Amino acid sequence: MNIGILGGGQLAQMLALAGIPLGFRFRFFDPSPSAPAACAGKHILASFDDTAALDAFCEGLDVITYEFENIPASTVEYVTKRLPVRPSLECLTATQERLAEKTLFQQLNIPTAAFVTVDVAEDLKTVASQIGFPCMFKARRSGYDGKGQRLVKSAEELLPAWEALGSVPIIAEQYIRFTREVSLIAVRSLHGAMKYYALTENYHRDGILRRSLAPASSPLQSTAESYASLVMKHLNYVGVLCIEFFESNGGLIANEMAPRVHNSGHWTIEGAKTSQFENHLRAITDMPLGSTDIISPTVMMNIIGTVPDTRALMDIENAHIHLYGKSAKPGRKLGHITILGGKTSPEIEKMLHM
Amino acid sequence: MNIGILGGGQLAQMLALAGIPLGFRFRFFDPSPSAPAACAGKHILASFDDTAALDAFCEGLDVITYEFENIPASTVEYVTKRLPVRPSLECLTATQERLAEKTLFQQLNIPTAAFVTVDVAEDLKTVASQIGFPCMFKARRSGYDGKGQRLVKSAEELLPAWEALGSVPIIAEQYIRFTREVSLIAVRSLHGAMKYYALTENYHRDGILRRSLAPASSPLQSTAESYASLVMKHLNYVGVLCIEFFESNGGLIANEMAPRVHNSGHWTIEGAKTSQFENHLRAITDMPLGSTDIISPTVMMNIIGTVPDTRALMDIENAHIHLYGKSAKPGRKLGHITILGGKTSPEIEKMLHM
Repeated sequence: MNIGILGGGQLAQMLALAGIPLGFRFRFFDPSPSAPAACAGKHILASFDDTAALDAFCEGLDVITYEFENIPASTVEYVTKRLPVRPSLECLTATQERLAEKTLFQQLNIPTAAFVTVDVAEDLKTVASQIGFPCMFKARRSGYDGKGQRLVKSAEELLPAWEALGSVPIIAEQYIRFTREVSLIAVRSLHGAMKYYALTENYHRDGILRRSLAPASSPLQSTAESYASLVMKHLNYVGVLCIEFFESNGGLIANEMAPRVHNSGHWTIEGAKTSQFENHLRAITDMPLGSTDIISPTVMMNIIGTVPDTRALMDIENAHIHLYGKSAKPGRKLGHITILGGKTSPEIEKMLHM
Repeated sequence: MNIGILGGGQLAQMLALAGIPLGFRFRFFDPSPSAPAACAGKHILASFDDTAALDAFCEGLDVITYEFENIPASTVEYVTKRLPVRPSLECLTATQERLAEKTLFQQLNIPTAAFVTVDVAEDLKTVASQIGFPCMFKARRSGYDGKGQRLVKSAEELLPAWEALGSVPIIAEQYIRFTREVSLIAVRSLHGAMKYYALTENYHRDGILRRSLAPASSPLQSTAESYASLVMKHLNYVGVLCIEFFESNGGLIANEMAPRVHNSGHWTIEGAKTSQFENHLRAITDMPLGSTDIISPTVMMNIIGTVPDTRALMDIENAHIHLYGKSAKPGRKLGHITILGGKTSPEIEKMLHM
């Protein structure tokens, strides 16, 4: 079976590494000449609006998926005319724009932070009256790794903050004082079977995920599963979905979701019986889902900005190394390591600039 | 780091799948247009005696290894002039010809079956007088999966058996009545560090490995390790080495060895903390070796001749599927499955024609 992936980053690379042993072969559509996934399949190097290249990409494929929700909806719409795309265009549009996402959470009675929308400067007045301070400004589109977000502490900061975000449509959201951040990786098959991984505790800095620990050992596991189930059924979802939550006052507040495999699920490669990558592929190819059982407590730490000495990384006991083959750049995710047993050390934390 | 592999079969494919996450990139030299490894790197399609193609293959590589001992020694000799080849040409020649291999075992006082060599028909007389019946005829070169072997039960069968093997140079070997067959996967770093996996119990039929179970729980683990250590030190070996033994009368009799990752070590992908594939790559790239500790008892079963229904395979609890992407053919290894916990069932055995 030939699988096309829109996007050729590390998520596409890890999907291919999980899928090749299942007999699948991969093709990646990515406008970057240095797409990390290119080592594990055929890379179609073109812009997302190049319909001739998209036609060539589709030729001979059985199914298409995407590794990133910021793929233009028009691209997904175009290829949907030719081939099954999983998760569907509807799933993508429901999650790639924050207003649609928040509205869906509300519609399904999934707790989420109070918010107002800001389209024009005039709307900033409602932020002070309806949300208060501090609050979070979040661009409605194209956000990831903390990009397009801003903490706003007072009425004086409203206009400068909005302008700093480019005066684009945003949502202004109540600031949640949370105990911790957790995420749920869920997967749904073509026939509606659903499975869930253990809730994962996430630690971010500067808006970028640094470390994930599974299991989060949260009493809210079944609550999180019921929320994911509502979303997936509503969207007739196929594949892996990640929902990020704040744990606050003994409950979960849905923050955002991603219609794809997710950084906070990388621990499943070694820490679960079937990885999120394999289960995403099983789902979109109409195969039975694999067990999501955890094998052992696991900690995953991102390698960000620069890669430490490879020998030193390989010397860490029980660590599994994942380097994506990307060039170094501040704030860029270049790899991750997973440690079974879930224990880290001050030396390791220092090496990875945690 | 760029790694070249002579041979582009499933072993090369699994090496690449283990190495891409370590940041390595791969190039395969294989005369077959349908080389299974091609999906995980660049495939140089040429004959092993095509020196221009070998030159192109070498360009930009850091190190070369091979996935199969039947690569012509002249090919390895040629590329050795340009790049480090690990294991070395000496290791290859010591193991690709049965007489050299047996002689090395004897020289290192590693027990092996008594044998005589047969080069011309005249030599067949010594078989009757020095070895007796039944005995095994084994072609000295190019044997794998039981190819080039013949059981000989009486003096009358000597000449026909030899002719059936093409009247090539053979060794005639004492027939060992063994309790079971076991193998040891060992690995040695560039600086002489050595690690060993748990002895694995192997079941063959028609000369082809069908099933491996680890650990073999053999009291002979340390004996096997001492034999492998002797061989690896003697050859200044770098990489993974497999030695196959007969367990007989409470001791080990070395049968043959392979200077490469081995089918009986496939269980290590999921069953050990570091797979044989990753440790081979760590060794040849001068990285520290990873832990060879076993995670759980594991059974590996080969998929031979035809691939069962993929959905049925994926429905097996705790099974990990590995399909190599090869076309079906009687006796051909097309994939394997690994079951953590080490338990199989009559249904699974039937599905895989055990």
